[in-house]
Amino acid sequence: MSPEPILDIAHLGHLELLTPKPQESLDFFVDVMGMTESGRSGDSVYLRGWDDYEYHTLKLTASAKPGMGHMGFRARSPQALERRVAALKDTEFAIGWTDGDNGHGPAFRCRDPDGHVIELYYETVRYEAPPALRPALKNQAQRFPARGCNVRRLDHLNCLARDIAANRVFFETYLGCRLTEQIVLDSGIEAGMWMTFTNKSYDFAYTRDATGSMGRFHHLTYAVDSREDILRAADIFLEAGVPIESGPHKHAVQQTFFLYVFEPGGNRVEIANAGARLILAPDWKPVVWTETERKKGQAWGLKTVESFHTYGTPPV
Amino acid sequence: MSPEPILDIAHLGHLELLTPKPQESLDFFVDVMGMTESGRSGDSVYLRGWDDYEYHTLKLTASAKPGMGHMGFRARSPQALERRVAALKDTEFAIGWTDGDNGHGPAFRCRDPDGHVIELYYETVRYEAPPALRPALKNQAQRFPARGCNVRRLDHLNCLARDIAANRVFFETYLGCRLTEQIVLDSGIEAGMWMTFTNKSYDFAYTRDATGSMGRFHHLTYAVDSREDILRAADIFLEAGVPIESGPHKHAVQQTFFLYVFEPGGNRVEIANAGARLILAPDWKPVVWTETERKKGQAWGLKTVESFHTYGTPPV
Amino acid sequence: MSPEPILDIAHLGHLELLTPKPQESLDFFVDVMGMTESGRSGDSVYLRGWDDYEYHTLKLTASAKPGMGHMGFRARSPQALERRVAALKDTEFAIGWTDGDNGHGPAFRCRDPDGHVIELYYETVRYEAPPALRPALKNQAQRFPARGCNVRRLDHLNCLARDIAANRVFFETYLGCRLTEQIVLDSGIEAGMWMTFTNKSYDFAYTRDATGSMGRFHHLTYAVDSREDILRAADIFLEAGVPIESGPHKHAVQQTFFLYVFEPGGNRVEIANAGARLILAPDWKPVVWTETERKKGQAWGLKTVESFHTYGTPPV
Amino acid sequence: MSPEPILDIAHLGHLELLTPKPQESLDFFVDVMGMTESGRSGDSVYLRGWDDYEYHTLKLTASAKPGMGHMGFRARSPQALERRVAALKDTEFAIGWTDGDNGHGPAFRCRDPDGHVIELYYETVRYEAPPALRPALKNQAQRFPARGCNVRRLDHLNCLARDIAANRVFFETYLGCRLTEQIVLDSGIEAGMWMTFTNKSYDFAYTRDATGSMGRFHHLTYAVDSREDILRAADIFLEAGVPIESGPHKHAVQQTFFLYVFEPGGNRVEIANAGARLILAPDWKPVVWTETERKKGQAWGLKTVESFHTYGTPPV
Repeated sequence: MSPEPILDIAHLGHLELLTPKPQESLDFFVDVMGMTESGRSGDSVYLRGWDDYEYHTLKLTASAKPGMGHMGFRARSPQALERRVAALKDTEFAIGWTDGDNGHGPAFRCRDPDGHVIELYYETVRYEAPPALRPALKNQAQRFPARGCNVRRLDHLNCLARDIAANRVFFETYLGCRLTEQIVLDSGIEAGMWMTFTNKSYDFAYTRDATGSMGRFHHLTYAVDSREDILRAADIFLEAGVPIESGPHKHAVQQTFFLYVFEPGGNRVEIANAGARLILAPDWKPVVWTETERKKGQAWGLKTVESFHTYGTPPV
Repeated sequence: MSPEPILDIAHLGHLELLTPKPQESLDFFVDVMGMTESGRSGDSVYLRGWDDYEYHTLKLTASAKPGMGHMGFRARSPQALERRVAALKDTEFAIGWTDGDNGHGPAFRCRDPDGHVIELYYETVRYEAPPALRPALKNQAQRFPARGCNVRRLDHLNCLARDIAANRVFFETYLGCRLTEQIVLDSGIEAGMWMTFTNKSYDFAYTRDATGSMGRFHHLTYAVDSREDILRAADIFLEAGVPIESGPHKHAVQQTFFLYVFEPGGNRVEIANAGARLILAPDWKPVVWTETERKKGQAWGLKTVESFHTYGTPPV
Repeated sequence: MSPEPILDIAHLGHLELLTPKPQESLDFFVDVMGMTESGRSGDSVYLRGWDDYEYHTLKLTASAKPGMGHMGFRARSPQALERRVAALKDTEFAIGWTDGDNGHGPAFRCRDPDGHVIELYYETVRYEAPPALRPALKNQAQRFPARGCNVRRLDHLNCLARDIAANRVFFETYLGCRLTEQIVLDSGIEAGMWMTFTNKSYDFAYTRDATGSMGRFHHLTYAVDSREDILRAADIFLEAGVPIESGPHKHAVQQTFFLYVFEPGGNRVEIANAGARLILAPDWKPVVWTETERKKGQAWGLKTVESFHTYGTPPV
Repeated sequence: MSPEPILDIAHLGHLELLTPKPQESLDFFVDVMGMTESGRSGDSVYLRGWDDYEYHTLKLTASAKPGMGHMGFRARSPQALERRVAALKDTEFAIGWTDGDNGHGPAFRCRDPDGHVIELYYETVRYEAPPALRPALKNQAQRFPARGCNVRRLDHLNCLARDIAANRVFFETYLGCRLTEQIVLDSGIEAGMWMTFTNKSYDFAYTRDATGSMGRFHHLTYAVDSREDILRAADIFLEAGVPIESGPHKHAVQQTFFLYVFEPGGNRVEIANAGARLILAPDWKPVVWTETERKKGQAWGLKTVESFHTYGTPPV
């Protein structure tokens, strides 16, 4: 009998995005993406999609360069958080406790092998809609904004990394992530990994940084309800002058219907939808894509845009 | 600190549906719903949606009367199955072990307080598509059928019961189900419950049987990718002469976009979609709907059809 | 050989809507429907959908009671307008020339047999988007608003009338309208008619006023691109507290996917979509619905709401 | 006052497609596209979409090479047909009368300046569905097939030509086509034209043959109801092994949402949707795209695939 899986992390909670153009970035997320501001603190603005249940899923922080400040994962229980901290605290990856933030209680910080900062927390601040934003249906966090792309909830994020395998082992060992799909080159080198804590087919992905840099960020993704919403988002980005990098199209990997753009601060942002696809099998066998298979491009034949392998934030 | 949640059950695996018109029911599920036959055994045919990873999610069995034979839940691991059996085996609910079925290994059977038969299993038979049904993308169980309603995967089921609260306590205590939404009448009597093992907002629902009967079945539901798919399904049912009971419309409870029809054997079948909605919070606070709130009807004002409270299978 | 059809009218151009709550109605059309204001004059505000090519398709005028001020049809050419005026000017229906309005040149006014005011014009004012509303693609009248329901263009209107047959003959004889569908009761009395000048299956409909009143208005309809847009509109109306009368559902007649609400002034407003349906046959045989057929309700079984036969503006 | 427009042609009625692989092409149109066979004659099979009102919109004819046999336009009336024949019969373009075909009565044939064969007819054979294909709603030609891509109706065709301007003048002068959009190079040479007889923004397009050949065919297009239908079609083509050339994406010209594939005989086939877009203005000013504008690619940035300018049937 195999050992039982670690189930201590509940889901991706938020990420901190760094932007050299804070006002333009804020306008983009509020007016074009259709997100809601929950509050401000120092150089940061806290934002969320209309269905995100926590105070924030995006912390937008003014910075000299674009990139990701940190990513936050919510533990399933106080005991679960303690177990993860116990496993991490004496390793080379540990940073230590913080007092928390506007949106959550005490958090334990660590670094993945590539240097990205990770925050684990359990206590959270649930979003309470002010009267003007109260929804008509009580099982919804906030009223539907009817503005811009109307993104629903944070879906996943994607980091670049030098050594995918090392990061995979780290996330499996210390956080109990399950690998659902990966790319393995003919040389045996792992070039991409998609991992999950939930029934979503991934909560984050890591892909190889073709520039050999470390600690960089690839993109964050908000989910909408249908592929039609993504096509409409493409119209909205076009009208708003937001640069479209690629899409809308369907990824072969994970079958996500995607659209990639750049927010004014230079970070890549995706709007995506996976239909009703979920990973329900508790013992899902990871799907392994070969180099040859990936050369076929995306699901319906679109070639992967070259910048996808080289552009990350901060740029190099 | 609260005790930690039980996470032993992974997901709803399948249900056995009884039909007095086996050939007509089979034609309905294959030709109109767009499902695939995996095999046959005795009086039963095993069926699945194109994205269901197991051998079957629906076992269609010839019977004098319509109704549900049993529902099957897959445990997260062998150890998890053992724990659930240990908790159940000496209770009034226990039935005992079976050798399994075409689609899975040994299963432990029990009864909920209303008499519905439940099966717990871990070992499963993964669906292997024959050459003609192999998908173009390797991360998909089977090729998309392009036939009828093209239902994707089993989503949930709904039973009728005399005492909702007793059933809720049973599922919470013995199976670790989480309650996400419920209806509580002004009298304090619970009239409906929606429970989940996953990030779906429910894997099954129980609603009060207005006839006072026990052990009856309300409906099973297959998911499609978009609300547009459900509107198209309505066209297809209309053309095929399948009786539509209610919808398409949006439920206030759970916000599911629904369409209810009757299969030839008399059982109620739903096609549904919840957009990108997921329950990610590990400590989700159940949404409680009052009698007054439920009298408003569905989300956009459609009155709940009367037969919804009284018709179940077997009919009384 | 039959005589050739009259092809002098190009399309429904606009309608004037009367409202006792001008500011609330304006807010509804701009903020909830997503329309754009082109200008104001006296007690009127001129509005349009983002794809309407003329200055306005809706003239909203303050008035003691709700209802329709007039409907405007654009002629295909100056010569075509002259022919229609020549046919009408000495009849009991004629009113005479007006100097035009903000959105168009001289117009000839007449009344249908039920008393609704009709305006025929050729010279029009094309909408010129101000810089902030210029579209990214030059083949579009205005940038997509990304606000509220984002209605695209005026689709049709519906009047109530005492004598449908008399109105049908009037529109066929004097304006060259083509009847595409109608309801004929068992008594032989016509109860509804759908007429067109274009390849749309109708530019307007007349249905019998069950109250026996004359000159009343039933609803105006703006088109959106997909059925999904209408489902989303239902969400938006729900959030905005706009009363939903019926839908979303699919009409049996004309197969229009519909959603009816009431604007603050009391007038009924529809959002609709017909998919890719067009009437291309120049000699289309009108579809005649019997009393028995209409009793089946709408396409998927929804019963026609009672207020649909009795409520019009002004109310009686 | 300008002369009045010619309104004698009602719509594109059908085209004859030549295929060197008649059985494979037939299987493609019936099984993958979801079309219905109306009948056969000699080496030809007659096909239509479920909403096409005529006997056929596609005549599939076995031939040594792929390409288009002819295109057929239906006149608005017998008198209108006479007028068009009178205008053409003594010109260099005239071929003469044929007795008609399975799907229509006597037709007058001519050639455009590039050599494509055109057929004008008025008398037509309306499709009568056999019992098994009778629709549930009487205002529909045939029941919805629920098979493959379920294409609704013939939308348009596209020819390649050496001299676009000459063809434009021919269609304007002899058939009364209205130009809605065109591409004019910096040299003043016309490189593409989109023309219509209806409220659709085009019934056919001609684009310049980069190989300098004459009489070639670019593609035919069937319409579906939504962009979601086209995304689903892409999935279906992928599963069926049908080569996808480009898309799904949105054209800048005409804003059509498109998907191009190759049928087994080698002809290019498009599935498209234009939302609720219609050209209602009787005096629409053609939109002129410059060389610079076209270099931007499609609406959301996809580069036009090179084969689009060079591949036509028969291939050269």
